[in-house]
Amino acid sequence: MSANIQTATAVEKLPAVPLTLEGYSVLHQMFRLRWPAWKALGRDNRAEALVEAARVLESMEQNEEGQSAVYSLIGHKGDLMFLHFRNSFAELNRAELRLSRLRLADFLEPTTSYLSVIELGLYESSIKLYRSLMERGVEPHSAEWNREIEALLETQRKAMHPRLYPKIPAHRYICFYPMDRRRGEGKNFYTLPILERGRMMREHGLVGRRYSGEVQQIITGSMGFDDWEWGVDLFADDPLLFKKLIYEMRFDEVSAVYASFGSFYLGVRVAAPRIGALLEGELA
Amino acid sequence: MSANIQTATAVEKLPAVPLTLEGYSVLHQMFRLRWPAWKALGRDNRAEALVEAARVLESMEQNEEGQSAVYSLIGHKGDLMFLHFRNSFAELNRAELRLSRLRLADFLEPTTSYLSVIELGLYESSIKLYRSLMERGVEPHSAEWNREIEALLETQRKAMHPRLYPKIPAHRYICFYPMDRRRGEGKNFYTLPILERGRMMREHGLVGRRYSGEVQQIITGSMGFDDWEWGVDLFADDPLLFKKLIYEMRFDEVSAVYASFGSFYLGVRVAAPRIGALLEGELA
Amino acid sequence: MSANIQTATAVEKLPAVPLTLEGYSVLHQMFRLRWPAWKALGRDNRAEALVEAARVLESMEQNEEGQSAVYSLIGHKGDLMFLHFRNSFAELNRAELRLSRLRLADFLEPTTSYLSVIELGLYESSIKLYRSLMERGVEPHSAEWNREIEALLETQRKAMHPRLYPKIPAHRYICFYPMDRRRGEGKNFYTLPILERGRMMREHGLVGRRYSGEVQQIITGSMGFDDWEWGVDLFADDPLLFKKLIYEMRFDEVSAVYASFGSFYLGVRVAAPRIGALLEGELA
Amino acid sequence: MSANIQTATAVEKLPAVPLTLEGYSVLHQMFRLRWPAWKALGRDNRAEALVEAARVLESMEQNEEGQSAVYSLIGHKGDLMFLHFRNSFAELNRAELRLSRLRLADFLEPTTSYLSVIELGLYESSIKLYRSLMERGVEPHSAEWNREIEALLETQRKAMHPRLYPKIPAHRYICFYPMDRRRGEGKNFYTLPILERGRMMREHGLVGRRYSGEVQQIITGSMGFDDWEWGVDLFADDPLLFKKLIYEMRFDEVSAVYASFGSFYLGVRVAAPRIGALLEGELA
Amino acid sequence: MSANIQTATAVEKLPAVPLTLEGYSVLHQMFRLRWPAWKALGRDNRAEALVEAARVLESMEQNEEGQSAVYSLIGHKGDLMFLHFRNSFAELNRAELRLSRLRLADFLEPTTSYLSVIELGLYESSIKLYRSLMERGVEPHSAEWNREIEALLETQRKAMHPRLYPKIPAHRYICFYPMDRRRGEGKNFYTLPILERGRMMREHGLVGRRYSGEVQQIITGSMGFDDWEWGVDLFADDPLLFKKLIYEMRFDEVSAVYASFGSFYLGVRVAAPRIGALLEGELA
Repeated sequence: MSANIQTATAVEKLPAVPLTLEGYSVLHQMFRLRWPAWKALGRDNRAEALVEAARVLESMEQNEEGQSAVYSLIGHKGDLMFLHFRNSFAELNRAELRLSRLRLADFLEPTTSYLSVIELGLYESSIKLYRSLMERGVEPHSAEWNREIEALLETQRKAMHPRLYPKIPAHRYICFYPMDRRRGEGKNFYTLPILERGRMMREHGLVGRRYSGEVQQIITGSMGFDDWEWGVDLFADDPLLFKKLIYEMRFDEVSAVYASFGSFYLGVRVAAPRIGALLEGELA
Repeated sequence: MSANIQTATAVEKLPAVPLTLEGYSVLHQMFRLRWPAWKALGRDNRAEALVEAARVLESMEQNEEGQSAVYSLIGHKGDLMFLHFRNSFAELNRAELRLSRLRLADFLEPTTSYLSVIELGLYESSIKLYRSLMERGVEPHSAEWNREIEALLETQRKAMHPRLYPKIPAHRYICFYPMDRRRGEGKNFYTLPILERGRMMREHGLVGRRYSGEVQQIITGSMGFDDWEWGVDLFADDPLLFKKLIYEMRFDEVSAVYASFGSFYLGVRVAAPRIGALLEGELA
Repeated sequence: MSANIQTATAVEKLPAVPLTLEGYSVLHQMFRLRWPAWKALGRDNRAEALVEAARVLESMEQNEEGQSAVYSLIGHKGDLMFLHFRNSFAELNRAELRLSRLRLADFLEPTTSYLSVIELGLYESSIKLYRSLMERGVEPHSAEWNREIEALLETQRKAMHPRLYPKIPAHRYICFYPMDRRRGEGKNFYTLPILERGRMMREHGLVGRRYSGEVQQIITGSMGFDDWEWGVDLFADDPLLFKKLIYEMRFDEVSAVYASFGSFYLGVRVAAPRIGALLEGELA
Repeated sequence: MSANIQTATAVEKLPAVPLTLEGYSVLHQMFRLRWPAWKALGRDNRAEALVEAARVLESMEQNEEGQSAVYSLIGHKGDLMFLHFRNSFAELNRAELRLSRLRLADFLEPTTSYLSVIELGLYESSIKLYRSLMERGVEPHSAEWNREIEALLETQRKAMHPRLYPKIPAHRYICFYPMDRRRGEGKNFYTLPILERGRMMREHGLVGRRYSGEVQQIITGSMGFDDWEWGVDLFADDPLLFKKLIYEMRFDEVSAVYASFGSFYLGVRVAAPRIGALLEGELA
Repeated sequence: MSANIQTATAVEKLPAVPLTLEGYSVLHQMFRLRWPAWKALGRDNRAEALVEAARVLESMEQNEEGQSAVYSLIGHKGDLMFLHFRNSFAELNRAELRLSRLRLADFLEPTTSYLSVIELGLYESSIKLYRSLMERGVEPHSAEWNREIEALLETQRKAMHPRLYPKIPAHRYICFYPMDRRRGEGKNFYTLPILERGRMMREHGLVGRRYSGEVQQIITGSMGFDDWEWGVDLFADDPLLFKKLIYEMRFDEVSAVYASFGSFYLGVRVAAPRIGALLEGELA
């Protein structure tokens, strides 16, 4: 916007689509417990069902190839949330099928879910690489162009491996919500030049960075997979930080003008072995 | 908008995000009673369930560390609303789990809920402090800046303690609704300068003040916790005052232009010991 | 809009909020009958339940302190609508609790409801009074101002008593719908000067007046009580008049530009003693 | 828009509301069959229920005073649609009550419905008459004006009788959808001069006329009756014509700019005597 | 937009509606399995039901006149999706009726569905033909015009037969979503000249072409049939390609500005003979 004419010309020429890296496939499952039927089942049957559920969930929690975690949700949106990180969508499907087979599952009603993959957006390196390729006269989508792109992605994929394939953070609270970038009639994120978007994302990142150490953030992409473009997970021991962080970000240009948000889910982490106590009505 | 150039320059420089103070964690739970099953339970079983419910709810009602209250809702949105003030989200989760264990809970269907924390917005003191710090040349987010902010918050937190950790007002009627500040393509609250927002919030506050003594208002923030940005509770003995207050406010610039509202819930307070009469179909 | 500068100045100064008068508290309750269970109950049990229901509804129908009425709804939105006029929200709550205790209620599923109070908007007298007070230099919200306002309201309240506390019109058909005044980014009813709004409401009223004698209209206000700002009830013996009236009004500026509408409910009046025939499948 | 000043002046003066004629009252009822319970009923009981249903539906199908028709819906929106044409809303209510009493009804869940009346919009004759009356200096809404309007309506009502009180077309496929004319902040059908609207409706009609003989269209008005302004039924033996017609119309100014659409329902006509085969899972 | 005046004149004259070709009728059916009831049915009964379901689905899978396919859906939107290609809507209705009769169907709850026909949009040939006819002075919708159009469609219908009547691609993953072209107040696809739309569709197609071989795309039209204008199916062995393709396309002018999207469904293909394992909780 404040760019002079020379820059504006360059802007025009840069490809619009930033590169991304993908990691784990992710499924959020929200359930309501049918308490009356569950209580009517009787203490012994419940105990048996809980032993089975705890055993299966504990093994998922400790899975080397992508963990699962259990959360106690607050409010009517659900009683339990299962969060699964896996190496493929087929593995996610297997995880939900495995849980469907639990005796406990007979008392769980799905309220919603979210399907996505861990995503790192590479605005800065995309811009840098696009610029350098274009200065060298390399044609977008040419073989050389694609080779250079793939090389960058490969390098970054290795460097970012821990962020693409993370363990589920151990914090006590989780906040999950899906979001879109606005495509309004007047304000449309997708028609902005990549430099504009890059600048806004950079400023947005600065806010997040001020909370590093206190709030851990995992961004997942869901275009083609679910009803919003991204799903965001925040993890913290103090849930007030979720509000503080999100409130502060809401004044960022990229959020204030270009973000729309879905429902928010707030959960308390429950270690798999403690799911029995929870479902007897006690939060550890 | 009517600011001269000198002020406009100052406006540009002030940080956008107003400070806030947080108090009790708050959960609203709305339930529909499954009347047919409840009636079919038989008088003796109902009586037993009601004694248990009244006992648990009464102890929550008298809880020193954050009270609960019971309301009879009018209309199809629910029959009962439980309002909980607690010291943490984990405590709120425990409160809902405790209620799930009641025999009565087998006859309650959750229709909706709302999760938030009591919030005091400090537009005026934020503006004053930001101005004074900037005049002294203190850099936003620098160590000194943060120290001064924290000092102000600490002072205010003490001064405002009774408003951050209130008892639930005893009035006969409650009105609850969630709301957002608009982020439209043309009208966007979050892109306005803090001075503009501060001015509108001050005018908005003047209307509320005219009802003080008659209508008690508790504002809760819910960014990151639930689907709207704020939840508002109004308490009064004459419910017409809710309409009068809200109608008057709707002409305020900050409401007329920048507010969007969710569903409204209207309840009649029922003391916990009287929940038995209510669920036998009699409002005291 | 066509005002000259002198008037425009006056416009600026008039307070924005028109005065209103309130009468009966009003509850609309829509229910679907669970026909299969109802039929399975058997003729004798149904007859017994219907005698009880007719007796209670008849006494509500003849209530001196605010009547009730029963309607057979057309379409899937419900089978029955109960309309209650009462002296307070607590009384409305008692009415719904009384109906919940009916045997018949075990076969009724609430589909929706609407809570409001009868409201008369006083645009014309508000403008006149505001003008005269301002010409006399009386300060808005001063003691004198408030005294004069209260005096006007008191006078009007007496004059309008029959319209504030009416009997439910006896016409064969009812049309109910909730509505809002638009608060769009470009077209916002609440930011218009009161003179503009007054003019549009007056023109709107002229259309309604052409149907007087044929269509009876009761306006209820619901800010703070339910999800829309107003609820409208139309009563007529020929339902085509609903369409004609509403179609004609839709071209009024205040409807064309500034109205948004919720769902429409169309019912046929059923005298309480005839509810038995209706629920055996016969409309009288 | 391209009108010169002289015409524009005339435009200003013509009343905004076009005349309409009304015919049959119309109810669409959509149901899902509870297949599991229906199958569990057993062959003999099903056969008995189907004989009863076929008999009642066949008599409705052959009703002289407004027919009914049965459609097998495709997809999850419902299994059956009943379409009723009747002389009044009370008659429609009786038709739905009659069907509720069927044994088959115990296995039908209402998914949605639509209430409206057959409507012919008279843009062209309204404009002609308004013009001629105004040239003669007749005052809108004066006694003479109303007399002339009523005379026109009466004449047209007779001429249009077959289109106002039609038999249900016998074609194999039906397409039903509700629609509104847009009242947006920038584009508002209801604030356009009647000449503009008349011109657009005329162009719109030309497209429909190209399909005459192949697609039969029945327009119903529903302001005051249901949640959209109009309901449209298309009938054809080749359902691809629905798509072709609607696609072509979508580029008309009045559709492209001023129409918004609800859900679309696609059904296959089933003669009442064949409903038995359908509900045993066979489409004739 | 960048067209000079001469071209602009030509633009004005070209008809707005592009030609389309239609192929198979298509039905997507999404179901949730009622796991608790299904498990309670017992192993032997389940086995029997699965043998029956596998047999019927396998014959549909191998149907010469339009195949069916089974997918395991991920998340709460459903457990199973059936995709049917058939020669008519009546055939689709028969397919769903056939499945309703399965014992397995007693445990399936429809969550949603989508009805459409395979469609090829002919922007380029339409523009070419319209231009050439107009240069020859042929009048739109004249007999000659229609003959030429029909001749083109007939030729293309033959050439495109394999794309109009395809087998269901064998890839492991499917992504389904419905979409509309925007008809906003400022941005309206349907009021753009056909040349503008043709240009944007061509650019859009170029992106798709870069994924050919990896992602197979089937476009279906649904105006008049279902609630969106189009339904899109993508098929691939690597589901990350769905995200990559859709993300890249979102920056196209025709998507960024003129597309709105419904829900996204992600499924894993399950060969009919393996549905038994799936419904015992194992994904092959």
